[in-house]
Amino acid sequence: MKNLIVASTSTLHGSGYLEYILPNLSELFKATDEILFIPFARPGGISHDAYTAMAQKAFSKIDKKVVGLHTFKDPIDAIENAKGIFTGGGNTFVLVKQLHEQKIMNPLRDVLFYGTPYLGTSAGSNICGQTMQTTNDMPIVYPPSFKTLGVLPLNINPHYLDPDPTSKHMGETRETRIKEYHTQNTLPVVGLREGSWLQVHGEEITLKGILDARIFEKDKAPYEISSGTKIDYF
Amino acid sequence: MKNLIVASTSTLHGSGYLEYILPNLSELFKATDEILFIPFARPGGISHDAYTAMAQKAFSKIDKKVVGLHTFKDPIDAIENAKGIFTGGGNTFVLVKQLHEQKIMNPLRDVLFYGTPYLGTSAGSNICGQTMQTTNDMPIVYPPSFKTLGVLPLNINPHYLDPDPTSKHMGETRETRIKEYHTQNTLPVVGLREGSWLQVHGEEITLKGILDARIFEKDKAPYEISSGTKIDYF
Repeated sequence: MKNLIVASTSTLHGSGYLEYILPNLSELFKATDEILFIPFARPGGISHDAYTAMAQKAFSKIDKKVVGLHTFKDPIDAIENAKGIFTGGGNTFVLVKQLHEQKIMNPLRDVLFYGTPYLGTSAGSNICGQTMQTTNDMPIVYPPSFKTLGVLPLNINPHYLDPDPTSKHMGETRETRIKEYHTQNTLPVVGLREGSWLQVHGEEITLKGILDARIFEKDKAPYEISSGTKIDYF
Repeated sequence: MKNLIVASTSTLHGSGYLEYILPNLSELFKATDEILFIPFARPGGISHDAYTAMAQKAFSKIDKKVVGLHTFKDPIDAIENAKGIFTGGGNTFVLVKQLHEQKIMNPLRDVLFYGTPYLGTSAGSNICGQTMQTTNDMPIVYPPSFKTLGVLPLNINPHYLDPDPTSKHMGETRETRIKEYHTQNTLPVVGLREGSWLQVHGEEITLKGILDARIFEKDKAPYEISSGTKIDYF
C-alpha cells in the first residue's frame, strides 16, 4: 500500500531545509530510524556526499540517520531493503538519467507500490508522476526516456508559480507551459505551490499544506482545489 | 557565409509580432521577396497554418511573402531552394523533435553555412546553438536528440531573465539553471534579454539591440557585454 509525501519544495523562503514538513516526516518514517537518500538530482551540481550531509542535518532533528544511495555497491539491493526513502530536488533530467542508467526506476517503483514510505521534494516529486514532462528544469543532460515511476495517475508541476500580472516579460507563464503540455499529452497535471504536498495512502491522494493547488486537465479550464481535497476524480 | 539574426524574442511587450526588428529584417532578406517559414515550434499548440498566417501578417509590412514548410511535399528540397528562412518560437522540444524526425536538421545546417539568410526567434534561435540544452521550455515531447544546428560555437538562452531580488519563490533562477548546465557541459551560453539579438556575418557574431547580454562560461563568473560587442573570444 503506497505511503508517500510528494512535496512541491524542500524549503520555504526564510526557513531551513525540510523544516516546514518535519512533523509530517516523523509520522511518515515512524517505523524506521534510517532513511535511504537518493541524491542524484544534484541541485547546483552539489556532490552526492555534500547533498547527503544536507539531508542528514535536517533529519537529525527528528533522530533519523540518512544514508546515500551512491555509497552502496548494489543500489537495487539497497532500495529493496530500505525502510524509508527520500529523493531530493535538483535537476530532474540529471536525476532521471541516473535512475534509468542505473536500472533503478523499476525497483524503486516496485517498493513504493509495496509500501516503503517515500518522501519526494521537487525533482523527487516529479518522478512520482507518469513522466517528467512537466518539470521546470533545464535539459542539461539527455535521459534515455522521460518516463518516471508512475506511482501517481497524473503528473506533478512542483514550485507552481502564478502568473505575475505586472510582468512585461514575454516568456511563457507556467500556466501557458502546462497548456502546451496538453496540446501533446492527456495526463492531468497538479500544480503544487511551495508549501503544498500530496499525501498518498494506497490509492488515496490528498492535498496537504495551507495553500490551494491548481489542477490542469486537457480541454478544461484550470481550476483550484483546497487543502484537504482528495484527488480521486481522474 | 553565414548571415543570421538570432533573436531572443519575436515580440516586445506592448508591440506587434516582429515589429521591433522589421527594419533589420528588410535588410537581412533584401535579396528575396519570399521567406520559408518553419512553424514547427507551435507556440501554445497553434496550428502550422495559423502560425504561418501570423508570420505572413508581420512580413507583409515589409512586402515579403511567407510560405510554410509544412505545405511542401519535399521539405528538404524546400529548404535547399529557399532564399530566406525564418524559424519561429514556441516549444523547443516540439521543434527539435520535428526537425530530427523529418531529417531536416542537416539540410538546414548546410544552407545556413552556405549563406541562406536566416531569422530565428526564441526556439528558432535556440536551435542555432550546438544543443537545445539551455532552452527554457517544458519537455512536453521527447526528441531523439538534444543536438541542434550548431551554426554558432555556443548555446543560446533566449528570454534571459534577471533574478528578482524580492522574490520568495524557491525555484531556480535562470542564472542558477545555466550554472547547473555548466556542471554537466562546457559550452559558453549567451543569455539574450528580450529585445537583443545576435547578428551573424560569416564567423563574426555581434550583439545587437539596446540591452546588454549576460555571458556564462564554465568556471568563470557570469559577466555582461554591451550592444555592439563582437563575440569572438570563445
